[in-house]
Amino acid sequence: MKSPIQTYLEALHKELSSERGGQLASYIPELARVDAEQFGICLVTMDGVAYCVGDTGASFTIQSISKAFVYAAALADRGQEYVATKVGVEPSGDAFNSISLHPHTGAPLNPMINAGAIATTSIVAGDTPEAQWRRIEAAMAAFIGHEVSVDEAVCRSESETGHRNRAISWMLKNFNIVEGDPMAKLENYFRQCSILVNCRDLAYMAATLANNGTHPLSRVRTLPSEYVERVLGVMATCGMYDYAGSWLYEVGMPAKSGVGGGIVAVLPGRFGIGVFSPRLDEKGNSVRGIEVCKRLSRDIGLNIFSWTSDPSMALGRIYTASSAPSRRQPGGEARELLKERAHRIKYLSLNGYLAVDGIEYVIRQMLTLAPDTHSFILDMHQVIGISDSAARLLNQARAAFRDDDIAVAFSRIHGRPQISAPLSKTAGAGLGFLSFEDNDLAVEWCENRLLEDRAAMPAVAGRLQDARLFKDLPEGLLQELEQVGIRQMYAAKAPILVSGEKSDGRIFFIQSGQVSVVVPLQDGANQRISTLGPGMVFGEMTLLGATHRSASVFADVDSSCIVFDAADLDRISARDPQFKSTLLANLAKDLADKLRTATQWIAALA
Amino acid sequence: MKSPIQTYLEALHKELSSERGGQLASYIPELARVDAEQFGICLVTMDGVAYCVGDTGASFTIQSISKAFVYAAALADRGQEYVATKVGVEPSGDAFNSISLHPHTGAPLNPMINAGAIATTSIVAGDTPEAQWRRIEAAMAAFIGHEVSVDEAVCRSESETGHRNRAISWMLKNFNIVEGDPMAKLENYFRQCSILVNCRDLAYMAATLANNGTHPLSRVRTLPSEYVERVLGVMATCGMYDYAGSWLYEVGMPAKSGVGGGIVAVLPGRFGIGVFSPRLDEKGNSVRGIEVCKRLSRDIGLNIFSWTSDPSMALGRIYTASSAPSRRQPGGEARELLKERAHRIKYLSLNGYLAVDGIEYVIRQMLTLAPDTHSFILDMHQVIGISDSAARLLNQARAAFRDDDIAVAFSRIHGRPQISAPLSKTAGAGLGFLSFEDNDLAVEWCENRLLEDRAAMPAVAGRLQDARLFKDLPEGLLQELEQVGIRQMYAAKAPILVSGEKSDGRIFFIQSGQVSVVVPLQDGANQRISTLGPGMVFGEMTLLGATHRSASVFADVDSSCIVFDAADLDRISARDPQFKSTLLANLAKDLADKLRTATQWIAALA
Repeated sequence: MKSPIQTYLEALHKELSSERGGQLASYIPELARVDAEQFGICLVTMDGVAYCVGDTGASFTIQSISKAFVYAAALADRGQEYVATKVGVEPSGDAFNSISLHPHTGAPLNPMINAGAIATTSIVAGDTPEAQWRRIEAAMAAFIGHEVSVDEAVCRSESETGHRNRAISWMLKNFNIVEGDPMAKLENYFRQCSILVNCRDLAYMAATLANNGTHPLSRVRTLPSEYVERVLGVMATCGMYDYAGSWLYEVGMPAKSGVGGGIVAVLPGRFGIGVFSPRLDEKGNSVRGIEVCKRLSRDIGLNIFSWTSDPSMALGRIYTASSAPSRRQPGGEARELLKERAHRIKYLSLNGYLAVDGIEYVIRQMLTLAPDTHSFILDMHQVIGISDSAARLLNQARAAFRDDDIAVAFSRIHGRPQISAPLSKTAGAGLGFLSFEDNDLAVEWCENRLLEDRAAMPAVAGRLQDARLFKDLPEGLLQELEQVGIRQMYAAKAPILVSGEKSDGRIFFIQSGQVSVVVPLQDGANQRISTLGPGMVFGEMTLLGATHRSASVFADVDSSCIVFDAADLDRISARDPQFKSTLLANLAKDLADKLRTATQWIAALA
Repeated sequence: MKSPIQTYLEALHKELSSERGGQLASYIPELARVDAEQFGICLVTMDGVAYCVGDTGASFTIQSISKAFVYAAALADRGQEYVATKVGVEPSGDAFNSISLHPHTGAPLNPMINAGAIATTSIVAGDTPEAQWRRIEAAMAAFIGHEVSVDEAVCRSESETGHRNRAISWMLKNFNIVEGDPMAKLENYFRQCSILVNCRDLAYMAATLANNGTHPLSRVRTLPSEYVERVLGVMATCGMYDYAGSWLYEVGMPAKSGVGGGIVAVLPGRFGIGVFSPRLDEKGNSVRGIEVCKRLSRDIGLNIFSWTSDPSMALGRIYTASSAPSRRQPGGEARELLKERAHRIKYLSLNGYLAVDGIEYVIRQMLTLAPDTHSFILDMHQVIGISDSAARLLNQARAAFRDDDIAVAFSRIHGRPQISAPLSKTAGAGLGFLSFEDNDLAVEWCENRLLEDRAAMPAVAGRLQDARLFKDLPEGLLQELEQVGIRQMYAAKAPILVSGEKSDGRIFFIQSGQVSVVVPLQDGANQRISTLGPGMVFGEMTLLGATHRSASVFADVDSSCIVFDAADLDRISARDPQFKSTLLANLAKDLADKLRTATQWIAALA
């Protein structure tokens, strides 16, 4: 089955193939000789998938499109301040080959006109023109994702006919914009314009800018993100020669065209687009290329000015530990206290990439909830990243909450530096970092905090009648159970039951300590389903005839249990049928309670 | 506790208050008389919350900021094609009061220079200059969110000194750009520049543009979204006089300034910003205003070119009906068939505002899953909207899946026109719309489809031994039960049990038909927790001594039950203790199974 994106692009390609307006560039014979009918469209997503239609593998020379990427390299090499002394960022309103120098400084108005591009090429890193060329080659290769080669015939022709550019170079030398040998540096410019690319390459170059400077396939950072904004800013106003205003108005994407017939267009955070069709309009832009961009903008809403978003999306579910308590199920006084207080543990699930607008919304909701909150848990499972600015605001909010004695704990952030690094970096002195591997542990910690760590889990030895399983048994039977049960100690970390193992009918009553019940997940990891403490029972499913253990049980700390053998229980049941009925009814009641809790969880999660 | 956004803006305000560069506008005495120290910053979110610092309530005249909004009104009134004959969209590179007309047509280069603004003002809807003024007033009021008034003294002064603008008007009349009486129309221009606003008003005007044309508080659509892009496009290149290129390069937000000291800046989809400080630089822009915008751009990453996003965020959880089956729990053959096939029901939870990039990702994943898929369920609960383009692509994908006999069902879309309307509008002829109120119903429908609607729920009368509760009972006891039970018919929709009601101990066995078990939610709605059919039992919790019914049960269709009285069961138990134990063990096993299913759900959802 074909993707509808592919179907759409094929239809667009077919429709625009009938557009035969425009002329091939003819200032050098090589450009006038290309097949005028060639036409390719390529769209690349932020995870590096390319939708290609038509002649997307055909090579052509990159020409002026190189200007944007060499400008990127110059920014990365020299920093913005230095670059600004050599070339401006104002649209010239003139044609691409106008000289347009600043009246006082001599700096070309912007890096997309020839004068500005020649100035830019002259300042990339490298002690010699040869070293500078290697730098240009490497920068192009990084944006494209593979090595580049040069069309030597085109390069020769460009150099042989490039007298106007020689004049510009000497003028730039005159103003001290170009330093060193201007002719040697100009050869690099001719060479960079003669780099061979195809339509697919252009789309990946655009996608690398759209993806904030990281190539979507190689995942190599090709340009620091602060310069990505700058390059796109210049492309937006100066990228389409003197068509800049209408371009931004009608298409609304930073773009750059070349007389080889290529166009790159960038939709930040969404797509990189490459188009190739060599017939040009009188301004030097590919006729079909412009049409493709206009149509993509109109038909599928690609436009930097048309973002519909909703910062409230940053915040997913909110619930409290009343509706979704931890799974350890404390008994007695702790249970009662939590019933009363657990609504003061607020659980917030955050979503997506957290930028300032989303974090603003989240913090605003936290401020509203704060008067009735003891601890916040921020579940970061669905978060894919956080901007430094957003992280700073969240940390400022955490500090303020801390001052009001409200804890803010993170959950599911482990091993995810794209979230933890910005948060740590911007935390400021003295602000700790409370983080749990899963929500259950986070809720448990908050519950303990709510219970002031004391009533959480009674440390005293459990009595049999505390267990729900043995509830309502007459005193005599309890005493008999005490006698037939065997006291057993388990050291911390010791396995007590193993999931899948054949059941030997034993039932365990915890006297002291704590155990964890875990089930293996498909991915080999274990999921803790509950933590049990004194007065609680496990292994009781054997009463229902379960032939295998459905979960593993480990001692969390040194623990002592009373272990009952099925045969002993059967013996009592045979004598006193009421015993068995009571156990089964107690077991069923407990399961019904757990099912009720589980149903609450599902309602809270769905 | 104070929001960290507020804290940040207060610090910024304090810091920039020491900036005293620039001069008050002095071409009319009224502007030279304002308090030069005034300084306000206001930031408005997409849900209409305003963060205000400083003099955000102080009134001043809107001046050139009005140009962007009257241009918006002209586009809405006359359409883009007509407006384009009167005014261009190219930056002039000249000062705000340059005449800059197109050499052939006489159309001013763009609507942000005076000539262009005068042309724009002359074409808003209205048969007379008075009617046109009412239109301008109404447009401004809609963007601001309340009625506007005019500073009559400023207006008079503007008119008295506006000779250059008179010259421009006559020049525009000469080229037939302005039609009718140019002097009467020019008075509207003086008047629109004299509208009184405060900093907060500006932020809401900006926020209305940022919010795609809908005022974030009034929720009134003020400008069709296709024109929002156009207005922002012109502001981006022409909004800051001849500072346009550097503005987009350094600040990266469409903006417009006025000599009254105001600046509006727009971050599409995120924030509207208003700044007021009357000291101007030599280009006529507020000195502190520009600093605020630069700092907001740098400190909190507000820039249209710096979007980090991840289209994969559009797709949340994926699971199958194997891990999360419907709650009706069919028995027998259907149960076995589903165990084998339910992984072919794929459940996808979608997130956020679905634009083309997100939908592309979702469709791509669906294509990957398709070979092993019988039905897709798209849960739209977390979706806040979908663009027309994205809806069209999704519908094209649905049509292609349908051709491959793969169903695509929507869940939780009811009563949400922001999602259903784009989907319906772009569905094309003959493409149906399968939509369910909740996931459970959707899964159930897909299960039925998987079972080819036959084995799903046996229509035949259930036998007692089919019920899990009565499993393993000897034949004699089953016969006895048949005799003591009372046959009862329930008409479709009839209530059988009511949640919270005192239990009378009755237990129900379904012979034919179907019932739903529902629990009331906090918000007054009902949540269906299961659907039961022939051979199933409900009300059995009474066996555990439950004194009240924990759920309501309704007949979905005409249904017949065998109803057992607790007293009858007790009588049998008294005689045969094994009977009670068997029932309790069966009940506990059933609860344990349900708990296992619920735990799977939780694992799938969390």
